[in-house]
Amino acid sequence: MAVYTEVSDEDLALFLKRYDLGELLSFKGIAEGVENTNYLLHTTAGNFILTLYEKRVATTDLPFFLGLMEHLNSNGVSCPLPVRDLKGNHTGELCGRTAAIITFLEGICVKHPAPSHCLELGRALARLHLAANGFALTRENALGPKGWRPLFNHFAGESESISTGLKEDITAELDWLEKDWPRGLPQGVIHADLFPDNVFFIGGKLSGVIDFYFACNDCLAYDLAICLNAWCFEDDCSFNITKGRALMSGYNEVRPLSEAECAALPILARGAALRFLLTRCYDWLNTPEDAIVKPHDPKAYLRRLRFHQRTATTAEYGFNPA
Amino acid sequence: MAVYTEVSDEDLALFLKRYDLGELLSFKGIAEGVENTNYLLHTTAGNFILTLYEKRVATTDLPFFLGLMEHLNSNGVSCPLPVRDLKGNHTGELCGRTAAIITFLEGICVKHPAPSHCLELGRALARLHLAANGFALTRENALGPKGWRPLFNHFAGESESISTGLKEDITAELDWLEKDWPRGLPQGVIHADLFPDNVFFIGGKLSGVIDFYFACNDCLAYDLAICLNAWCFEDDCSFNITKGRALMSGYNEVRPLSEAECAALPILARGAALRFLLTRCYDWLNTPEDAIVKPHDPKAYLRRLRFHQRTATTAEYGFNPA
Repeated sequence: MAVYTEVSDEDLALFLKRYDLGELLSFKGIAEGVENTNYLLHTTAGNFILTLYEKRVATTDLPFFLGLMEHLNSNGVSCPLPVRDLKGNHTGELCGRTAAIITFLEGICVKHPAPSHCLELGRALARLHLAANGFALTRENALGPKGWRPLFNHFAGESESISTGLKEDITAELDWLEKDWPRGLPQGVIHADLFPDNVFFIGGKLSGVIDFYFACNDCLAYDLAICLNAWCFEDDCSFNITKGRALMSGYNEVRPLSEAECAALPILARGAALRFLLTRCYDWLNTPEDAIVKPHDPKAYLRRLRFHQRTATTAEYGFNPA
Repeated sequence: MAVYTEVSDEDLALFLKRYDLGELLSFKGIAEGVENTNYLLHTTAGNFILTLYEKRVATTDLPFFLGLMEHLNSNGVSCPLPVRDLKGNHTGELCGRTAAIITFLEGICVKHPAPSHCLELGRALARLHLAANGFALTRENALGPKGWRPLFNHFAGESESISTGLKEDITAELDWLEKDWPRGLPQGVIHADLFPDNVFFIGGKLSGVIDFYFACNDCLAYDLAICLNAWCFEDDCSFNITKGRALMSGYNEVRPLSEAECAALPILARGAALRFLLTRCYDWLNTPEDAIVKPHDPKAYLRRLRFHQRTATTAEYGFNPA
């Protein structure tokens, strides 16, 4: 949400010499993304986003993220395309940071998705999963089940300040999930952070997907479980079954869910709720009070987790596989 | 440098209904301007800047600022054009703020202007002064000579923490300027904040001028004195006479300076240096240490002031009126 690194016209002119992007017409720092510095570039070749990777993105993961965007693009997914420099590189150095240029994607984020948006999202997610097939690189999910307990241990002692009983709740949930987490489900590349602010629409139609900086290899159905959490609950944390049905039907239309995946959805949804509860608790406890970017309230994910704990079947999410 | 007010797709859709701007294709918060929230809008009608005025801009001054931009535009100045809504208004309400839409201007700010940029700037400034002729509204310069002492009184007690002897220096300078400030010079609308970050270039040619939120009525030559301070000193605060000559010759080409204006330039330059010294001191002392927008170092303007105090004639700035 901020420009952490100021890029001058001189720095940028030097950097752009390595690209075939024509003449620079304007550049503006944009308040996009919490972790990196982003500029919107307009050149005679079009509109682009210039990203300077700040501390939280491991630059060793960039070949996976940027390569994935390129792979998805070439397989028909509407997402930003990394621009290669004249030597064929995806990244370069700018102001002491690793930097990349990607194409600008038109579209608007929807704050309160309607069922029609959820339907489109389900289809797009399934298409993304299919399109990622054959991508050569792999990346472990650092925020998957194995990462949850170590993350919790960082702040377990302070967790009671967020909500009474939270430490015990999370510990019990970790015990249960670690024991019962499903094995053998179809694997592949997942987006892993497909919240409404990472999906663009124009006039009600999905126009593209952005921000692949959490993408990794994991169960495909876990990505759907993340979307169920991120798209199908109302502001008051009530579950909207119409949106759940739309999301899952849309997905199932394009990539039919296996019986095992369907059966696993409630537990995957619990895992996804816990994963965002954990990172939100961590951010909540580690953000200075006067920070411009306010952390999200973790309790919204505690309430989702409680909903999933009471849910036994995928039918309760609105989906009845034929 | 931040998005203070988050505008959702719903808020924006409602606001845009009042305009004839076609379909919205994207909007991004941009890190532009210290005082207001700005979004870059792309619609089927083109690119625009949406500004939400935060606390520091008095909305009663908006008719002056926005009317001036419209007047300048219609007189051939390349600056943003305020877009009127369907009812002919320049402003409306969005998220509890007064908001306006202006056209997007292409171009890049130059961090280290060359003499050629200063020449172009001088010409553009003179054209702006001439084009503003006939603009019906007026606005007093709140940061003109009458405003300096009251502003200083806000922080005089703390000024020694910036530089030893600063309190005495500023007091003596105020005494001198108040006594000797020139009267009877040609008046008009001035930009009053024409720093390099408010002037755009494309391929070395000046493409436009932005940010009219300090514009007011004052001596025209005082605007030139501000530019002399803002454009013709190097990073080490040494004066570059080649740039000074370029700036003033460019101005004089388009709007010949009178003898009285020429003679007054050294004192106007002192006043301009003091004005930015005062506001920078104020910001320096009133910005929280961990703020994302770091205040400019006031001492750069103390050093400019000292230079002007030693300068008696306009020739010493590189300009010899024919």
